[in-house]
Order: sequence, then C-alpha cells, then structure tokens
Amino acid sequence: MSLHSPQQTDSAQLKVDKTTLLSAFGKFLPPEAILFENEDLHPYECDGLSAYRQLPLIVVLPRTVDEVQQIMRLCHEHDVPVVARGTGTGLSGGALPLAEGVVLSLARLKSILEIDPVNRTARVQPGVRNLAISDAVKPDGLYYAPDPSSQIACTIGGNIAENSGGVHCLKYGLTVHNTLKLKVVTVEGELITIGSDALDSPGYDLLALMIGSEGMLGVVVEVTVKLLPLPERAQVVLAAFDDVEKAGTAVGEIIAAGIIPAGLEMMDGPAIQAAEDFVHAGYPTDAAAILLCEVDGSNQEVSEHILAVRELLQASGSTEVRTANDEAERLRFWQGRKSAFPAVGRLSPDYYCMDGTIPRHRLPEVLKKTAELSRTYNLPVANVFHAGDGNMHPLILYNANNPGELERTEELGGKILELCVSVGGTITGEHGVGIEKINQMCFQFKPEELAQFRAVKHAFDPDELLNPGKGIPTPKRCSEYRALGNHQHPHDDEASS
Amino acid sequence: MSLHSPQQTDSAQLKVDKTTLLSAFGKFLPPEAILFENEDLHPYECDGLSAYRQLPLIVVLPRTVDEVQQIMRLCHEHDVPVVARGTGTGLSGGALPLAEGVVLSLARLKSILEIDPVNRTARVQPGVRNLAISDAVKPDGLYYAPDPSSQIACTIGGNIAENSGGVHCLKYGLTVHNTLKLKVVTVEGELITIGSDALDSPGYDLLALMIGSEGMLGVVVEVTVKLLPLPERAQVVLAAFDDVEKAGTAVGEIIAAGIIPAGLEMMDGPAIQAAEDFVHAGYPTDAAAILLCEVDGSNQEVSEHILAVRELLQASGSTEVRTANDEAERLRFWQGRKSAFPAVGRLSPDYYCMDGTIPRHRLPEVLKKTAELSRTYNLPVANVFHAGDGNMHPLILYNANNPGELERTEELGGKILELCVSVGGTITGEHGVGIEKINQMCFQFKPEELAQFRAVKHAFDPDELLNPGKGIPTPKRCSEYRALGNHQHPHDDEASS
Repeated sequence: MSLHSPQQTDSAQLKVDKTTLLSAFGKFLPPEAILFENEDLHPYECDGLSAYRQLPLIVVLPRTVDEVQQIMRLCHEHDVPVVARGTGTGLSGGALPLAEGVVLSLARLKSILEIDPVNRTARVQPGVRNLAISDAVKPDGLYYAPDPSSQIACTIGGNIAENSGGVHCLKYGLTVHNTLKLKVVTVEGELITIGSDALDSPGYDLLALMIGSEGMLGVVVEVTVKLLPLPERAQVVLAAFDDVEKAGTAVGEIIAAGIIPAGLEMMDGPAIQAAEDFVHAGYPTDAAAILLCEVDGSNQEVSEHILAVRELLQASGSTEVRTANDEAERLRFWQGRKSAFPAVGRLSPDYYCMDGTIPRHRLPEVLKKTAELSRTYNLPVANVFHAGDGNMHPLILYNANNPGELERTEELGGKILELCVSVGGTITGEHGVGIEKINQMCFQFKPEELAQFRAVKHAFDPDELLNPGKGIPTPKRCSEYRALGNHQHPHDDEASS
Repeated sequence: MSLHSPQQTDSAQLKVDKTTLLSAFGKFLPPEAILFENEDLHPYECDGLSAYRQLPLIVVLPRTVDEVQQIMRLCHEHDVPVVARGTGTGLSGGALPLAEGVVLSLARLKSILEIDPVNRTARVQPGVRNLAISDAVKPDGLYYAPDPSSQIACTIGGNIAENSGGVHCLKYGLTVHNTLKLKVVTVEGELITIGSDALDSPGYDLLALMIGSEGMLGVVVEVTVKLLPLPERAQVVLAAFDDVEKAGTAVGEIIAAGIIPAGLEMMDGPAIQAAEDFVHAGYPTDAAAILLCEVDGSNQEVSEHILAVRELLQASGSTEVRTANDEAERLRFWQGRKSAFPAVGRLSPDYYCMDGTIPRHRLPEVLKKTAELSRTYNLPVANVFHAGDGNMHPLILYNANNPGELERTEELGGKILELCVSVGGTITGEHGVGIEKINQMCFQFKPEELAQFRAVKHAFDPDELLNPGKGIPTPKRCSEYRALGNHQHPHDDEASS
C-alpha cells in the first residue's frame, strides 16, 4: 500500500445520497453537464500522476460563473467535497477525485473575454489553454510568458492552481508574477474579486495566496493575465560537457555574469541519448550533459549576450559550443528538450517525474548525490531540468509490474526531495504538492508552520470541502510519516538570534 | 473630529496595568530597552502621517530575535496590543501607536547577517536601512532594487510591511518581487520561516501574504532579499509638455512600444516650479508637465532605447526633449524629482501626499478629473508620480490652522482615491492603508471581500493584538462610512458570467 493513498481516509463520509445530489444538480444544470455513470466518470479518475486513480461520485461541467456559484452553494449546503479540475495535466495528483466527492470541471469555461493591448492584459476564463492565450494576442505582438511543457493542453486555471512555470520562468517569472486579477467563487458560492488591474492592491495579498493553492481555497472562474511584447529576436546556444558537475558550475557562472537567459536548461547523458533517439535534435550523444542557453531581446542585446555566453561556456570547460544557425535549428534544439519526458518514457515501461528546487549554487553537489541515490536504489535516473532557476526534474525509470518497484521508486523520489530541502531548497518547483508530496511537507516544514497553513485553509474553507486531503498534511499524517523513521528537516532558526 | 481617528475605539481596554507590564518586561529586557516616561515616548507618537498622533503606553527596543519572541509571548499572555515599528517613515499611519498598546521598535535589530554574491541574496535584520543593503553589496557589483524616496532612512522591515516600491519598481518590481524568505515571530511568540532560498516554496504563498500586511499578521525579524547586478549604464531623458494629458498619453506610448524604462516619472506645473525653485535642477519652468524617462542595461541596449524614447516623445508632441549629457546632469535631473515633496512643502504650511494606482491608459482622464476636484474643493494639488506604473502621488496643499481645512483636505483626498478605484485602480500603490485609507477600503471592496481579509487576519491573530484598527476596516466602520453617504464601488461581477 503506497504511503500516498490514505488520503481517502481524510475525506468525510457523505451526508447525502447520490440520487438526491443528482436531482439537485438537475434543477439548474442540463443533463449533458452532469456525469455519473462509471464509463463517463473514467476519464476523470486521475490527472497526470496516473499511478493514483479514483472514480469520483459525480462530475459536473458548468458553462457559466453563475452555475459554478450554484454548484458550490449546493455542495456547501450538503457538505459535499469538491475537486476542481482543468484538463488534468497536473503531475502531483492535485485533481485526483474523491470517491465521495464531486469533480468540478472548468473545461467549458473557455472564453477569452477581453484583450487589452495598451495595458497589455488579457481577461480569460479558467478553461482557456495556456498556449491559446499567446495565439490570441500574437497579432498584437504580445504573448503570455509562463510556458509549462504541457502548454498546448493545460489550462490557465490549472496554471493558477499550481503556480506553473516553464522554460522561460527564469527570466519572466512564474504564474504568480504574470497574473493581475482573479475572480474566485468561495466555498459558500460567493463571487469575489482578488487583485486589480493596477500595479498593486490594498489589503492582504490574497492574489498570491490563491495562486498555487491547488484548488484548496476557492474556485477560480476568471483570470486577468499580464502580457509581454514578443522579443525582437531569440537565439540559443548548445554546450556539451564531459562531466555533469562542470555543466552545473557553468550555470552559476552565466548567472553570476549578470546575464539573465530567457531559458537555461540542462539534460544529462541518459536524457540526451533518449531525446536524440526519439527526435534527432542533433545532440552530441557522447556528452555527459548539455546546456541549452537561450537569450532574447533586441538584436543588439541578443548578439552581445550570445557572445558572452559562448565565452563563459568555453571557459567553464565545455567540450563543444554550438549556436543555432537559424530559427529552424533553434527550434530543433528545443524540440529535443521539449520531448525529453516522452523520449525517456520510451526507455522504460514507467517513469516518475520529480520536481524539486534548490539554490542554484548547490547544483553540482545535488546532481552528484542524486546519482549516488540512484545507485543505492538500483533505479536509473535521467535528469532534465530548468538549471537556471535550480528547478530539478529527475526522471526515475521503473517498471510498475515488478512487485515493490513503485514503492521503491516513491521512496527514492522522497529521498531526492529531502536532499533538495537539506541544501536549502524545496520539495516542489512548479508541479505542486497535491497528493504526491504531502508526506515531504512534514519534512520541509515545522509543526508551527504547518499549523499556520491549516489556519489559512480554515479562513477560506472551514469545513474542508475544497480538495480535501491535498497539499497540506494533517498532523495525523505527519506523525504516521515520522513513525516510519522519517524526521523533520533541522531548521536554522537559532542562526538569526 | 477626523473620520480617521476613531480607531482608538477599535482597541481593547487593557487587562493589565502599566506597572505590572513594566516589571514583566524588566525580567528579560535591560532598562535602556524599555521606554515609559512621556518625554521618552514622544518620538514614537506618530510616523510620516504626522496629522495623527498618539502616545503609546510603553515602547520596547529588543536587540535579539529571542527578546522579540519573549515580548510577543508576554503581550499575548496579557492581551496587550502591539504596534511594530521601523524608523517611522511610513505615510499612512501604519505605525500610529495605541494609548493602551506597546510599540515594538525593531530599530536595534540592524545587522546584515549574510551576503551571498553567487546566489545574489542578502540576509538582513528588519532594522537595516533600505540603502544600507545596496551600499553593503556594491563591492560585489550588486544592489537592492526597490528604492522608496525615503530609502536613506526607511528600514527593510518597514518596506516589507508596506510592500514598498519606488522610482525603479516599474522595471524591477515591488518589495514582494525582491524578497525570498522571511523569519517571522507569530503573535504567540513562535518563530516561523516563510518562503525559502529557492525559486518557489510549497504550501500557500505566505511570503506574499506577509509582505504588505502592515504589521497585522506577524513581526518580521529576518529578511532574505534578492540582489541585482548593477546595470552597466543608466541614462535619463527629460521631456517637457505644454499639456498634462499629452504627457500622460506619451507614457502609454513608451510602454506600448515594448520599452520598459527603469523609471518613468511625471511632474506637473506646480511640482516643476517648486522643485526648480528649491534645487535648480534645470527644469523648464514654463512646462505644464515633464516626464523623466530613465533606461538602464548594457551600453548598446541603453543607446538603442534612449534613441527610441526620444523619437516617441517628440512624436507625442513634447515641446522639448533633453538627454542628460553626463552622470552629473543625470543626477541633477533626478535631484529635482527626489526633492519634489519637500519642495512642494515649501509652497504651503502643510501638504498631504496621496497614493493611488490606476491602469496606465486612464492617466490623462484621471489627471483631468483630479484638476476638476482640486477646483471644486478650492485646494491646490501638485502631481508628482510614478507614471509608468500608474502610481499617482497627488500632493494636496493646505493649512491645518484654517478651521476645517484638514477635514476638507481629507475629503478631497478620499474623492481622488475613489476616482482611482472607479477607473479600475486601487486606493494605494506603495504607502499602504494604515489608518489613513481605512475608510476607502469600504469603497474598494465588497463586504464578502472584506470578510475574507478578516478571516485571514483571524488565521494569524485571532485576538486582534497585532496593530489593531489598521488596514482592514471593521463592519461597524464601513457602515458608519456608508451612513455618511459614501457608497461602495459598483463591481462588474456580471460581466464575466
């Protein structure tokens, strides 16, 4: 039994029967907006973390904010837990349903409501796909910066829930840095506005609080995003290294030189090999690691920075430095990186994508220790990650059909995350906690800190109806976790006194 | 009696007498760390909003985090309200004491604990002055970006409380965008860590929540700030206009062109005249408005952008465009802007500095309506502000000795803020709500939204001991405010359904 699963025990027993609930929904939702037969529910049984599956009681698909409000009022009245969902591309099980709960799909709220090129903002509904925003504003010479690998499919609502990043967040920030205003339906069904169209907003910063809250504080029904002007030019440099740590060091040197690349990505040997076999991006397959460093901006700026980056990479001992000759080659370089996850997937029946963040300068050391852990657990690990901002994505290759291998994989994953925390990092960069990392929360935070998270949750959702069992562990869960010999990360509070 | 004052009624009656409290503090604080005689308390009776004054019961000046924890434990035990304070340069009365409360001065926690040039961070105590950070990291070629006008005197702790901005926040963001981690003492005296040294942190974003919370959620005892590399070059252009609205339009055109200036400031006729008389910056005193547009970055980038900015300004009908010939002239141009507040202060016995934010493209219209309001109330208004990010600073000139003039000034100020809200802006950009704007909170937010703020406050400070009566209005205060004929801003919630 996986440590991750007992969340079901966190969810309350339903106080109302399915039939009553269905007829109540039927009063304001058309039949096609209510799913309850097993075959209709199956597509909703998991998100991108497919190792965990659970059929929900009911799925509702509202088309208006008013319907969302009515759904929340009804569920609140009957104490029915609600799991909000976009397109289900999340990787930490944040949208895993509850057997006794309703899945609230926001997929049908998918209109772009307003584009304001002067103020550089777009007002969109939560079901709008990340990439659809950039496509819609391209005629105005604008784009929406955060670009998770899943951007073709993932929705802006899901991006808000996970505070998604992507290849370009090193320079342009995470979702929280690119969002101005939200409209949110509270657990009671009230519609509130959070943030504003202006630079800052008075009162507590509920905007940032809501972003990354994984559907546990409210249901986002409208998002106003910031847009950026499309850069005049983008250019990418590929550097090969015969040693992973050298590549890690080069990353620090590029940043220390005062250059902020649009993207600074790293892949290690196994990832390079897999990507090359898959999409033939022209990667040097004999390299122990490659860095992809993209700079964007004005022509002058890009030329300057590419020159500086090339010199830095050569000086830091790369065996080969290549600049994309044209746009086609630039896209081919990225093609390899962007298809790295599926490419690695071809090497093994299953793979587990981790997501931890570390202070940039600890990169070489963490890569070394990850390799040691990989040997200890006898499970191959491929590394594909946002090196520039220290956001690691180790991919653990395993076979779920081998008894105990999933559990061993989870344990290795847990150790890698604890390694991240122990060097001053965190257990997640952009994928969220969800159900996947809820145990590591007990490692990352002190009981007083977890208590503060719970108090904030209580301020929005006192009855624990919004995505219960995700994100923030119960004291019970943490004591179970510690009982298994896991200890909390030693904190340095004394240092400051 | 001013509408702003009845906050005293919000503060609880003290359940413990002064003598008992003094002897309790004396058990762990040296005598010089406890002030209680009137003459010692006077320096703490107000902050930068000097129209409101109140002597506190006691002032304590801890030197260690441990002392701060003991102070909070003691005040919590005895239900004594606590107002945390830096150097008191705040402009919204956020540090106004309570007659029955303790002022917790963090001025003696003023060490720079650690500078990490590789990770580009500094770990400092809350009493460190904003400018002292940049001075300390200059040898590493780094600086701390947010630069409020008060940066020589104001502390980083105060910057956290107010989410301070400054001339450069258009390009480099507010305090919240330049802070990585906080150590916070809770109302119970617990020490918790919020945020991390890595790019992102799991759980709810308590870091952003704490920043700008005006001492109402906890006491910040350590701050880890992000540092930026000093730009290779900075250059400023001064443009004169014969019409304020033309200048406002030019601002939008510069931003729309995809240039993000390091600073984009505007001054109108009265402000120009006052600044010129005061510091002789060489401003064109016949102009109705001037813009100061600074760009920074690499030499190439700056040259390109200055050229583009000059063309845009000429095209938008400026009567004169001047580029600073050298660093001395660049500093002289800024000198006028930076001394504008005191300069305007020389024109009138008293002045009241407002702080509202609007969507950039509404600038011309808001300037026009502000001028109309100024005529209606027969009180001169000078405008000096961060035009680039729509952060207005109208300065109302008045004489407190004329009966009723302060009240008329407050009323005009309120109308200007409500004008900001009505065009989609907010009642504060960077000065906070404090006691000054607590009534306008009733205009900006719906009852449901204010209730959510109160619930968050309750999650951190259920007994209302941390800076009570500031920031978030009570329902009673809002009904009093509405009883006076003020109405809540009509919201556009329907628009999205």
